[in-house]
Amino acid sequence: MFQYLIAVLDWGGTAVFAITGALVASRKQMDISGFALLGAVTGIGGGTLRDLLLGKLPVFWISQPAYLVVCVIAAAITFFIAHVPESRLKLLMLLDAVGLSLFAVVGAQKGLAAGVGPIIAITMGVMTATFGGIIRDVLGGESPVVLRREIYISAALAGSAIYVLGDIAGLPLELATVTGFVATLTLRLAAMHWHWSLPVYRPRPARSPDDLGL
Amino acid sequence: MFQYLIAVLDWGGTAVFAITGALVASRKQMDISGFALLGAVTGIGGGTLRDLLLGKLPVFWISQPAYLVVCVIAAAITFFIAHVPESRLKLLMLLDAVGLSLFAVVGAQKGLAAGVGPIIAITMGVMTATFGGIIRDVLGGESPVVLRREIYISAALAGSAIYVLGDIAGLPLELATVTGFVATLTLRLAAMHWHWSLPVYRPRPARSPDDLGL
Amino acid sequence: MFQYLIAVLDWGGTAVFAITGALVASRKQMDISGFALLGAVTGIGGGTLRDLLLGKLPVFWISQPAYLVVCVIAAAITFFIAHVPESRLKLLMLLDAVGLSLFAVVGAQKGLAAGVGPIIAITMGVMTATFGGIIRDVLGGESPVVLRREIYISAALAGSAIYVLGDIAGLPLELATVTGFVATLTLRLAAMHWHWSLPVYRPRPARSPDDLGL
Repeated sequence: MFQYLIAVLDWGGTAVFAITGALVASRKQMDISGFALLGAVTGIGGGTLRDLLLGKLPVFWISQPAYLVVCVIAAAITFFIAHVPESRLKLLMLLDAVGLSLFAVVGAQKGLAAGVGPIIAITMGVMTATFGGIIRDVLGGESPVVLRREIYISAALAGSAIYVLGDIAGLPLELATVTGFVATLTLRLAAMHWHWSLPVYRPRPARSPDDLGL
Repeated sequence: MFQYLIAVLDWGGTAVFAITGALVASRKQMDISGFALLGAVTGIGGGTLRDLLLGKLPVFWISQPAYLVVCVIAAAITFFIAHVPESRLKLLMLLDAVGLSLFAVVGAQKGLAAGVGPIIAITMGVMTATFGGIIRDVLGGESPVVLRREIYISAALAGSAIYVLGDIAGLPLELATVTGFVATLTLRLAAMHWHWSLPVYRPRPARSPDDLGL
Repeated sequence: MFQYLIAVLDWGGTAVFAITGALVASRKQMDISGFALLGAVTGIGGGTLRDLLLGKLPVFWISQPAYLVVCVIAAAITFFIAHVPESRLKLLMLLDAVGLSLFAVVGAQKGLAAGVGPIIAITMGVMTATFGGIIRDVLGGESPVVLRREIYISAALAGSAIYVLGDIAGLPLELATVTGFVATLTLRLAAMHWHWSLPVYRPRPARSPDDLGL
């Protein structure tokens, strides 16, 4: 039951991130190979980095090419229907939030399954959730969504931490999973809607000559 | 004979991509260390990613530093003679096409040699062929050539697929190799010359208020 | 004694580079999670790539999460006191030079310890020293410091080479370490101060029609 839930989240996150990669390709008016490339690096990029760092090689999609196929199919469908939504940018941001929430939990779970401690497991969750989008934005020449002021990395951090701490606390894993997912998604959607941000770094105001005692 | 052919293509692709990295360095007026760095990441970047994902570690150029040496020599020669060609940009694009064609076949061959199935082998071909140039363009601050409208990824895909399907179909490997290389190069050069592109994604025209029934 | 010296340099380089990542985050007015992310990728990015290429997996900070913790603490402190220095950009460049010098030697030492030959050990030094900053600048959307005209990669190359050649020549390792570090730092600081650069590539002057014999 729990393995099934994680699998659903994992495949769902892959497809959803692949669509966001394809939407960036649509904004750049690329051809279908470009859709497939950007879709694939976004859908499997975060998990690939996770497997590399953990030393789980070859990486997951080499032994299970179906992940790659899902990305290519999602990108191809997007190629034909990307014009349907009212706003592609809004859809991109929305799906990015869903993928972030799914992978924050999945990444943390795969970290724990690989036997690492809580700090690294939470880091794996954040990394799996954010790096696909980072690669997508760098390759697509867009300003990385991770740099935006609204809460983003912190939402993934919250969801990963909830899952890992829930696991340590002995919560039923299904509950920890769903709670972590819902927390990340709620936080990120609310941040997008109300432009929530954590306190950001603000430079001191420029001093006037008077302050310098002149 | 076949191993010799693949080795020639592999070393040739490394040198040719290293020169394209050095040409980007020349456009940025870097010093000779910059030429060496950009030359090396371009020449061995795609194959390094391939080895990482397949788990063939340490990566090839650590056990065979001659690959690195070839990149540095190619970059150093470029440092002194980059002013000779009529147009450095044209030469860069031309050599990039040659490197793309060489590595599309070499990458697919190395994938099959590592025991992966056809989908992953073709993916390895495309990745080996394209990621050196992607890293070059991202580090060099240039718009990634992979994002251009003219056929690029699709050409590498065609060459890799021809090699892999030829191997499966029992073609002589030399024939599959040469056919895959020639197909990629012809397709890419023709696309550059006649600005061929696959159908690209086009957004629907902006609707006027009348269309909305107002 | 020598192991202790290398450990001091390694942890120092990690903290110093993490601060530079956090300073980039401060220039982008990110929140504290953004500081932690940019601090971590900068502090451990170069060493992570080194471990991946050498096949030393899982990478060092997974078995020793203290590296990650140091980065996060350094980034958090920077979040609160980044406004103190007169010029954050000047501080960033200064610390970047210190980190470059520390990691040039540490990277080369770790390469030799992994059993590779001198060319690859020097390459590992240059890579460990430069890639954290490259990832920082690419993610932060800044022009990569590695592309600047002043001596940068060459300084890391000099320090790594001094260490490796000193080791081969049978110098006391402490002496080789300190000499390599001081050489890189002196060269880089002098290059920043006096705008030293190696001869850079210069295109020939545009020919006038007369030169073409018209």
